[in-house]
Amino acid sequence: MAARRQAGGAIRAGAAPCTVRHDAGGMMDTITVDLGARSYPIHVGVGILDEVGARVREVRSGPRVAVLTGTTVGELYGERVAASLHHSGFDPITITIPDGEEHKNLAWLAFLYDRLIEARIDRDSALIALGGGVIGDLAGFAAATFLRGVPFVQVPTTLLAQVDASVGGKTGVNHPAGKNLIGAFYQPRLVLIDVAVLRTLPRRELAAGLAEVIKYGVILDPALFELLEERLDHVLHGDADLLVQIVGACCRLKAEVVREDETERGYRAVLNFGHTLGHAVEALTEYRRFLHGEAVAIGMAFAARLSQARAHCDAATTQRLRRLLKHAGLPTDVPGDLGPDALAAAIATDKKTRDGKVQFVCIERIGKTRFEYLSGVEIVAHL
Amino acid sequence: MAARRQAGGAIRAGAAPCTVRHDAGGMMDTITVDLGARSYPIHVGVGILDEVGARVREVRSGPRVAVLTGTTVGELYGERVAASLHHSGFDPITITIPDGEEHKNLAWLAFLYDRLIEARIDRDSALIALGGGVIGDLAGFAAATFLRGVPFVQVPTTLLAQVDASVGGKTGVNHPAGKNLIGAFYQPRLVLIDVAVLRTLPRRELAAGLAEVIKYGVILDPALFELLEERLDHVLHGDADLLVQIVGACCRLKAEVVREDETERGYRAVLNFGHTLGHAVEALTEYRRFLHGEAVAIGMAFAARLSQARAHCDAATTQRLRRLLKHAGLPTDVPGDLGPDALAAAIATDKKTRDGKVQFVCIERIGKTRFEYLSGVEIVAHL
Repeated sequence: MAARRQAGGAIRAGAAPCTVRHDAGGMMDTITVDLGARSYPIHVGVGILDEVGARVREVRSGPRVAVLTGTTVGELYGERVAASLHHSGFDPITITIPDGEEHKNLAWLAFLYDRLIEARIDRDSALIALGGGVIGDLAGFAAATFLRGVPFVQVPTTLLAQVDASVGGKTGVNHPAGKNLIGAFYQPRLVLIDVAVLRTLPRRELAAGLAEVIKYGVILDPALFELLEERLDHVLHGDADLLVQIVGACCRLKAEVVREDETERGYRAVLNFGHTLGHAVEALTEYRRFLHGEAVAIGMAFAARLSQARAHCDAATTQRLRRLLKHAGLPTDVPGDLGPDALAAAIATDKKTRDGKVQFVCIERIGKTRFEYLSGVEIVAHL
Repeated sequence: MAARRQAGGAIRAGAAPCTVRHDAGGMMDTITVDLGARSYPIHVGVGILDEVGARVREVRSGPRVAVLTGTTVGELYGERVAASLHHSGFDPITITIPDGEEHKNLAWLAFLYDRLIEARIDRDSALIALGGGVIGDLAGFAAATFLRGVPFVQVPTTLLAQVDASVGGKTGVNHPAGKNLIGAFYQPRLVLIDVAVLRTLPRRELAAGLAEVIKYGVILDPALFELLEERLDHVLHGDADLLVQIVGACCRLKAEVVREDETERGYRAVLNFGHTLGHAVEALTEYRRFLHGEAVAIGMAFAARLSQARAHCDAATTQRLRRLLKHAGLPTDVPGDLGPDALAAAIATDKKTRDGKVQFVCIERIGKTRFEYLSGVEIVAHL
């Protein structure tokens, strides 16, 4: 399932040699995100949390390191990570932020700057994000902007963050007027993914993360999609080797897309499959009713239906996607209380809109996409 | 005075073709800052403020543009710039920040984000900084971080900002714990320098800007240094053609240094000549007694004396530098009330310190520098 660029512009599962290997501790996969001087490795494995110290030692870092985490993940894994860092000769401080997206804002960013200054973090000190997307986005933006940039290490602990947020360099905070309005593109030096931590992830969040995994299969990798169709129950039951394989495949696919288009000027938009309507559903339900992955699942099922209606794909493709999403326990229908007018208006405020049109990602078949440029009204006509 | 890299690593005045030309409105110089995909032009001329609209039109920008300015510069030039933008079909909004370094902070940054959101600035909209270093740093950081980056245009109106802050991509805000602790490297799309606005610059600020001009001569360009020795009175009296020539030379020199080392990992440190002690003097006098350029003048005179004491340069070099600084009306002596212990401690908190040593820039002769790694105590021993 290694990503490979086709002449036609799509990415498909290729025959590139796979770097997955078996260690004493289980399977281990290493992906290199190739961005020239800013290239970095992603290590995916089981129990890798105990290697944080040794791995951070491999990237240049002075003795002081700061770990940013949330309340729940901090209680579960904070001490283990700190012990690993101590064991490798670091003098870590842990900064804990209350759980919840509402803390991903400028006020908590300022709090974080104050703690970094107190701890005398400098340009040789690594800032480590231990948590989900909120922690990664906030810590990444702090790392991008403190002293004009300090080394950043991601240790994502949700499936969504592991397959999505840990690759691509998007960092930022929310503003009352919209999500992620303040931010920067900033690459980590290292990403460490321990799939064993997914055992403590709530079932609903695991499913929401699977929505993004399914997305990678739909847009880029038929083999990944088929693997999910065959072995989804094993994934849901936490099969560690299978999780290493799947998370590694997603990271590899996203790394290839990001390499092609680091700052989101064109091709990277393929990753927005399901997100145009998904974002509108999230916004209209005030980010409370659905997890991000759930809204994306609704958006993907809709995007397939739109693609079918516009004769880009056949009914079998739409059905396969809906079936897999439902199997994962994800919603596929737009809630009845969200009217077309409200959805069209929400789509029109998308920050990627140009001249009133959205670059909408359609599918042609599993593993192949195409762009259409549509207004909000044209999109909701397919509801 | 075009900058050219020598094999030995220094930059010297070279024989590269000069792009200076005479327009109807006077001399005009264009420098290209060569940073690959992020390259941008600097136009230096007389009356160029009236060309802002046409020049911004040349870089990709949608109809909405925002001009950030300070109270005084806004009153003097805000309407002229807005008129030029209107004339070229833009719909500009002007955002005014009170004058003074104390407004370069996170609170005013948040104010700026709010105004950009209200004005519906998007990734196609240019953010224009019209002012000195405070405005440029604040607007640049906002441009770097709003929507993860919007196009940024610099229109610097102080001599210091024209020769220094407008090249190099350093943006940021202050924190109570230190200056520029929060920031990013972010390149403008375009820099427009109108030397005619220097007529309204207070004499003391003109002299402070000259300190940085003199610095470029000392570290990189003997011909520039000699030109200043010969024609400083004309500069001080506002000779426009001479100012175009000098400002253009400084921008060209700095552009060459930045091209070699965009994110300040090594060679760019040559620009810190005079700044190690200068920063300490500024900090100990709480940024109130001296303008930045004045503190740098004190720091340069001291660095020459230290270089001479350590047998790197001769007494004649030290004398030439002191004479030129005094001629410009700049201070050259460390104030008697700042003791060596306090200065050594202030130097030790420099954010570029590593292992307790500072990379101190010494001179060998006019146009040639060398680095020494010294502790604060070793430095102040030469007071």
